[in-house]
Amino acid sequence: MSQFENVTVVKKANVYFDGKVTSRTVLFADGSKKTLGVMMPGEYEFGADVQEIMEILGGELKVLLAGDSEWITFNGSGEFIVPAKTSFKLNVLTVTDYCCSYVV
Amino acid sequence: MSQFENVTVVKKANVYFDGKVTSRTVLFADGSKKTLGVMMPGEYEFGADVQEIMEILGGELKVLLAGDSEWITFNGSGEFIVPAKTSFKLNVLTVTDYCCSYVV
Repeated sequence: MSQFENVTVVKKANVYFDGKVTSRTVLFADGSKKTLGVMMPGEYEFGADVQEIMEILGGELKVLLAGDSEWITFNGSGEFIVPAKTSFKLNVLTVTDYCCSYVV
Repeated sequence: MSQFENVTVVKKANVYFDGKVTSRTVLFADGSKKTLGVMMPGEYEFGADVQEIMEILGGELKVLLAGDSEWITFNGSGEFIVPAKTSFKLNVLTVTDYCCSYVV
């Protein structure tokens, strides 16, 4: 799906790490939520309260999930799942476009 | 208005200047279009095909419209209008959140 229809978009951006990671919140009629974001190259660590499905729409990055010893490499596309109440590390190599779904 | 309801959001980001300026496209039922974007600090020049209304949602920046000799300073809020078929210069001092409306 290249676009989300009949949704609500929160106007203000979510800004993290001095703007190196930003996103917009998209709210769906069924009460679910996604964020569409961009990450500039850099190293970041995020915590997930609920399960997150991270879909990579563009960019090169490496991801280290909690408890894992090996980084997963993404090149332009792919998806990874962050279990609820865990944190994950990102090593973003090129500007990365993503869609994060929050599973509640 | 803090959010846009019953809209379509294009999933993929618009990326300019190596990701230092990015936006998402929001399409409205009446056929109109806005982009919600973020600009990292830096100097940029953009051209507008159609008239653009740029609303600043956050951030500090200076703007020079075509034909003007004086930069306009924005500090966290405000709005400027870019006439169709003109270009404008931006000197973004802090991470800037914006909403751009395209007037056709």
